[in-house]
Amino acid sequence: MSKIIIHQCHEKIADFESIFNVLESNLQNKDKALHIYPELFLSGYPLQDLCLQKSFFETYQNFLKKINEYSSSLKPSESLHLIGGLHYEFSESGITQKIQNSIYALSPGSPLKKIYSKRLLPNYDIFDERKYFTPGETSKSIQWDGLNIGLLICEDMWQSVHYKANPVADLIESSDNYDLIVNISASPFGITKNESRIAQAQDISNMLKAPFAYVNMVAEQDEVLFDGGSFLVNGNEITAQAKFFQADQLELQIQDLKKTTYDNEGLEITHSWESLFQPRVNISKESAELISLTNDQKDHILKATTFAIREYAKQNGFNKFQLALSGGLDSSLALTLIKLALKDDMSVEAIYMPSQYSSTQSLELSEQLCKSLNVPFKVLPIKSIHTMVRETFTDYFEEPFEGLPDENIQARLRGALIFARSNQSGSLVINTSNKSEIAVGYSTLYGDSVGAFSIIGDLYKTEAFDLCDYINEVHDNIIPEGIIKRKPTAELRENQFDTDSLPPYPILDAILECLLSYRYDRSDLIEMGFEARDIDLVLKLYARSEFKRMQFCPIIKLKTKSFGFGYRIPINKHTGFYFD
Amino acid sequence: MSKIIIHQCHEKIADFESIFNVLESNLQNKDKALHIYPELFLSGYPLQDLCLQKSFFETYQNFLKKINEYSSSLKPSESLHLIGGLHYEFSESGITQKIQNSIYALSPGSPLKKIYSKRLLPNYDIFDERKYFTPGETSKSIQWDGLNIGLLICEDMWQSVHYKANPVADLIESSDNYDLIVNISASPFGITKNESRIAQAQDISNMLKAPFAYVNMVAEQDEVLFDGGSFLVNGNEITAQAKFFQADQLELQIQDLKKTTYDNEGLEITHSWESLFQPRVNISKESAELISLTNDQKDHILKATTFAIREYAKQNGFNKFQLALSGGLDSSLALTLIKLALKDDMSVEAIYMPSQYSSTQSLELSEQLCKSLNVPFKVLPIKSIHTMVRETFTDYFEEPFEGLPDENIQARLRGALIFARSNQSGSLVINTSNKSEIAVGYSTLYGDSVGAFSIIGDLYKTEAFDLCDYINEVHDNIIPEGIIKRKPTAELRENQFDTDSLPPYPILDAILECLLSYRYDRSDLIEMGFEARDIDLVLKLYARSEFKRMQFCPIIKLKTKSFGFGYRIPINKHTGFYFD
Repeated sequence: MSKIIIHQCHEKIADFESIFNVLESNLQNKDKALHIYPELFLSGYPLQDLCLQKSFFETYQNFLKKINEYSSSLKPSESLHLIGGLHYEFSESGITQKIQNSIYALSPGSPLKKIYSKRLLPNYDIFDERKYFTPGETSKSIQWDGLNIGLLICEDMWQSVHYKANPVADLIESSDNYDLIVNISASPFGITKNESRIAQAQDISNMLKAPFAYVNMVAEQDEVLFDGGSFLVNGNEITAQAKFFQADQLELQIQDLKKTTYDNEGLEITHSWESLFQPRVNISKESAELISLTNDQKDHILKATTFAIREYAKQNGFNKFQLALSGGLDSSLALTLIKLALKDDMSVEAIYMPSQYSSTQSLELSEQLCKSLNVPFKVLPIKSIHTMVRETFTDYFEEPFEGLPDENIQARLRGALIFARSNQSGSLVINTSNKSEIAVGYSTLYGDSVGAFSIIGDLYKTEAFDLCDYINEVHDNIIPEGIIKRKPTAELRENQFDTDSLPPYPILDAILECLLSYRYDRSDLIEMGFEARDIDLVLKLYARSEFKRMQFCPIIKLKTKSFGFGYRIPINKHTGFYFD
Repeated sequence: MSKIIIHQCHEKIADFESIFNVLESNLQNKDKALHIYPELFLSGYPLQDLCLQKSFFETYQNFLKKINEYSSSLKPSESLHLIGGLHYEFSESGITQKIQNSIYALSPGSPLKKIYSKRLLPNYDIFDERKYFTPGETSKSIQWDGLNIGLLICEDMWQSVHYKANPVADLIESSDNYDLIVNISASPFGITKNESRIAQAQDISNMLKAPFAYVNMVAEQDEVLFDGGSFLVNGNEITAQAKFFQADQLELQIQDLKKTTYDNEGLEITHSWESLFQPRVNISKESAELISLTNDQKDHILKATTFAIREYAKQNGFNKFQLALSGGLDSSLALTLIKLALKDDMSVEAIYMPSQYSSTQSLELSEQLCKSLNVPFKVLPIKSIHTMVRETFTDYFEEPFEGLPDENIQARLRGALIFARSNQSGSLVINTSNKSEIAVGYSTLYGDSVGAFSIIGDLYKTEAFDLCDYINEVHDNIIPEGIIKRKPTAELRENQFDTDSLPPYPILDAILECLLSYRYDRSDLIEMGFEARDIDLVLKLYARSEFKRMQFCPIIKLKTKSFGFGYRIPINKHTGFYFD
């Protein structure tokens, strides 16, 4: 009786030794089985320019040889391993002439054999696959143990007006008798991604009248998370699903898996690629507002964020974190997420750096939070350093040091000091900015915008509030309510509040979600019921703050449209068109 | 008698009003002529995600309507305008379904007519055209005034194993009687680019037995420069060439332009696309060294850099510059370049910020340079602020504040203070890092790495030395020799020199050029004669400093391989493969 084993692996890119160990161990498994691994399991993903570096691909080619030698040394067996990997072709001068994102077949006793190459190469948002890869030209099914198995790699299961090829349609055309469809993926996390993948897989399962096995990887790669959640669906049924954000394995008996009837309604794909990029906004007759996160989404965000924090630190050789606490919502949420992420060998230190404008409320709330979280709380006043800067400036330049320079220098001194402490203790500084701030540039470059890694930078301020409430619900009110209830303030001058410079956050966030989806312009926003004054302020701040975003650290990507590598807007531009 | 007029335009992206004015004025020209404009003249380039924003493309579509209305209002004439522009097709829901990089034909009295779309869409280095555009499928020639004119857009003139299509071969196939080949381009500057373009155009001119008109734009777009230098070649002859880094116009009589014979040797393309990416390194039997810049290249770098400084400032609304002077070579070179770039309404201020480790030599050399350049020189000592930081740290943390934290805090205080001064005076802070430092992370994040714009970040340290010498040659020794002769030092502790931590710069730079081209690995470098110790140090520093480069400001791109948007290497990676 043969099995399918879905290997939801969790490897670092280019960590060939560890990848080899996984294969070695699985090749020794004597049970007859179809083993399935994620897309580009052999190399990791996304590699970006690494795949063009000779130092990388020579090592990779040697790694493939090592696998072949090992496999050839084994007693032949009927098991089949379907493995995602890069396939290189070189010119005579040794330059890469062609790279493909392929599926290799491997059976104990035989070498790797490339059997299929990805046809739809995503080249939108964070994806640059056309930059590196050559698409495969034909669809493919393979025969194994009497089964007819259709092959797809990640994007191949989607359709878009942007693609000429349609791999799913080609599979339908070439056979009407599949026993299994396999899709190997390296699919980035997004808060609505799991539902979309399953719905799309169910449609295809119904269309091709066969079970659909979806294998996703688990990884944290700079700003991108791969969430796992591999599954097998059979028509409208979800037969099995692996865990999220951890290595896992699904083992299924192939026998009797295929149903006799599939859903007739499912004869057309109902989920377009374009629908993945819908702005998350409810538009009613009189107003528009951000769609609230569901509890399920909040739970996924908690899992995603804590996973990312641990992984980013581990990959960069850190087990200590450093965070500048202000007594406000964002840094409190960030600290709580770090605390929730910590493994036994990890620690975090919070530093509160008051200036003359910091309130006692901020100090008290910061201290309360650290007590509640059981996190070391340090105070490092910047008042005397700030005063010394003011005096030095006044002494050496004949101009008053006040207003913007005086506000920003406080944030920048804190930026310098938190990194001094990080240098001293060997800790990783976590950034505390939210998406609303980043979008309108409501932060000081080299000030509160510093950090090695941003963990809430893809959450709007209103979502940060909601997440705090949710954490308090599921984690016994660990965030002091005073932090959630207080009025947002940067405390860089007397009586300063965010609403002095920005529209109220619910309005700001809804406008931003519309703007950042690219789908709405000023006149649409007016029609939705926003005030022209608010719209124009947001447009102006957004258009002017590109230079700050350009120097930002990696931001954990939680949505389909995020700031970071997939967001590419020029700094220098005539901005008149925003206001036409 | 009819003419060709090559319009080497200099417009900002999305500045539709200004672009319209150019067209309006040219359409009023009553002489019968073929007017040629750069690639994507109607929108600017590169637009990146802007072209997907509704606010952009709706305004753009209205702009096209305005051109059509204006042209229709004119008396019909025989002149023909060939204009680069975006061509959009929309889905029913208003989402962009297809965008093409096209040539429009426009004749007074008639509306714009799309006649050709770019076939080879570059998707390497800084180019993302496959992300946005759909390639054209066929080559095209047009008839005008009895002439048969073959059309190409930029990349269409190159060939690579990476492209299936070959537009030049298709032109050859479809006719053996061209009177003119037109290539409209938006081709980024590079120090060897002009020679490559001309050589390639000459080959094609010989192959197609017709004059070749090449129109390039002039622009500064974030890190990318478009240098102009439009030309007409006829076989091996350069008939005319426009100026570099400024708007210009070439007017040529078409009559008698076509020669009776072309070079028979030119029947094959000798310049491959791949050759554009050759590392600039001389490899002899016993050693490898960076190829020195020629005087011509140095002159181009001066023009490129001063142009970029002016343009970047202008586009961001600045006419004042701010620079932190250290008394070392890099900041001195940067200040000199700014001074050479200044127009009458612009100014620069240099600030010297000594710590306890700064030598009197540094002060004297900085002052000398400012005197020589006639630039205001300010001193802002950081010693007392630095001391206050040390004391505050010692008071509040029970650890000595020394070593790395104490070195870095000096750089970070300077970073904070130069930006405080920039906030105070409304000036643009220019970064002073060179390419060697950026490659090995020999700088402090948020310290000496700060700035809005990097002007020497694509020059290796040895090239920075050579450029200083060249400037002194052509500008009457404006840089004090003491600055060029002194031993490089960061002055962050007693008796610190760059060579304590790095190989000598000629060796470092040669290793880096080999590495950054992606073509050589550790064993190649060993074979070239470099010491294993040097190679491994450079590999380690290079691989570990990705996080610093990720937060860097835009760096003026002078080479084919530069840090910035076109350089994409993950931060998180297993680095074992570098050392295999």
